[in-house]
Amino acid sequence: MKSAVAITSKIHLNLNLRRNHLYSPLSRSIFLGKAKPVFQSPPLIRTHSSNPNPNPIMASSSKPEQARAPPALPLPTPPVAKFKVGLCQLSVTADKERNIAHARRAIEEAAEKGAKLILLPEIWNSPYSHDSFPVYAEDIDAGGDASPSTAMLSEVARLLKITIVGGSIPERSGDRLYNTCCVFGSDGKLIAKHRKIHLFDIDIPGKITFIESKSLTAGETPTIVDTDVGRIGIGICYDIRFQELAMIYGARGAHLICYPGAFNMTTGPLHWELLQRARATDNQVLPHSPFVFF
Amino acid sequence: MKSAVAITSKIHLNLNLRRNHLYSPLSRSIFLGKAKPVFQSPPLIRTHSSNPNPNPIMASSSKPEQARAPPALPLPTPPVAKFKVGLCQLSVTADKERNIAHARRAIEEAAEKGAKLILLPEIWNSPYSHDSFPVYAEDIDAGGDASPSTAMLSEVARLLKITIVGGSIPERSGDRLYNTCCVFGSDGKLIAKHRKIHLFDIDIPGKITFIESKSLTAGETPTIVDTDVGRIGIGICYDIRFQELAMIYGARGAHLICYPGAFNMTTGPLHWELLQRARATDNQVLPHSPFVFF
Repeated sequence: MKSAVAITSKIHLNLNLRRNHLYSPLSRSIFLGKAKPVFQSPPLIRTHSSNPNPNPIMASSSKPEQARAPPALPLPTPPVAKFKVGLCQLSVTADKERNIAHARRAIEEAAEKGAKLILLPEIWNSPYSHDSFPVYAEDIDAGGDASPSTAMLSEVARLLKITIVGGSIPERSGDRLYNTCCVFGSDGKLIAKHRKIHLFDIDIPGKITFIESKSLTAGETPTIVDTDVGRIGIGICYDIRFQELAMIYGARGAHLICYPGAFNMTTGPLHWELLQRARATDNQVLPHSPFVFF
Repeated sequence: MKSAVAITSKIHLNLNLRRNHLYSPLSRSIFLGKAKPVFQSPPLIRTHSSNPNPNPIMASSSKPEQARAPPALPLPTPPVAKFKVGLCQLSVTADKERNIAHARRAIEEAAEKGAKLILLPEIWNSPYSHDSFPVYAEDIDAGGDASPSTAMLSEVARLLKITIVGGSIPERSGDRLYNTCCVFGSDGKLIAKHRKIHLFDIDIPGKITFIESKSLTAGETPTIVDTDVGRIGIGICYDIRFQELAMIYGARGAHLICYPGAFNMTTGPLHWELLQRARATDNQVLPHSPFVFF
């Protein structure tokens, strides 16, 4: 079983340079920011650095201070100025205990390298199949023995004092199954739970056929959460395909958007880099996506 | 003086495969399309071909037919199924007459090669400077001798029976100057006029400083127009930076979005390919942008 832990370079959350760029006369409902528009280069995938040139301007001549009524939400103060992000790319087996132990080791390795925010991919504790989802699903709300995967995440977040965006696992809730991402604060508390909103129903004959909605139920709610490392919006895999979700997170003051993914190799390569860069540039946030490929 | 005329490969406007992908539970206001979501690969820049695999599905399990009230606008029937697009990249001199003659030759060359839609870049009849704008500006609404640049476009569109998205020229209207794109139908009639909405005010010391709003006034209106080759949304250069404009065009049934540009080489390379591909993929339209570089 192989794993790869990618540590991004240090992130400098230079909030004064962010998101002011978003203003458009046509986007009155989503503008957030200061009156004076400024410019920041589009964030690059996985590697971010502070802007070497903090005060250029590049913006519309429009008047963003008049753009939103009621006025824009105040941006939260960044809790830390610089931190490392660990993206854990995990291979998955049919042995759930082994998957959990493997994910734990990857998280510990990333934390040892200094990561303060650590991400896992989509469905990291189970094979990606309709047969597996009900077998590997856990009752996250019940917790404890009913959810060994999230119990591990909670414990390791608390012990290592890190924030974890815990990829996703199949969640059982009543008689329904969801594809669910749990976020744990550095005290080990479950601080957010995102259920994949856009289920991926695909049928390209001879290439890939998978109708997620056969076994899973779609979530209905965007998820944004304040953590030790900033305000994070959550999407799962195909959620990235919909610009509106990222726009909502941008408007709600997100510093980062995290999209745990398990992309397929037929349509994935056309989308993953393009959509991450587009969401980041359009909404002036930092995107992070650990992937499982299948 | 050099020019380059790029002829894109034939475009197959396979409307049944378009835009259905847009639906999101979070985007009720912009969904347009049929009830059954389908998949199309992201359009590539400048080269489009018909989808080799017309019936795969890839979509949310949500119910798009319930997504919009009142129901989505019906999509217009595509007037032609296949056509060539000519993108004229022009160098610009201080001699306006020469610029006009040069643009005319480029249009004629593209039409000879079979293009039915021909695009010019931003500010193709004038140097890109505050001193030049008032000198080269034309009263488009007065027409005739007051606007030799658009008179040429009208004539050549009529003679060659082509649709022209005429890049942009400085427009004088009363005591104001605009950066304005004129669209001519194949009968030579002016069928749309777009004034650049997002003026580009940039100041990156030592690299590029240009405050367009010093001499130009921003337009206030999106522009979408039905032509012989389909429904076209227009943006000018920095207008492409704002996803909302493209979303409006997608929701209004655009088949193509054309963004004449004059990108700078400091911030341009970070943006032009990314933003064209993102607007196309997110809104399932075909983007075309002829550029002047400065």
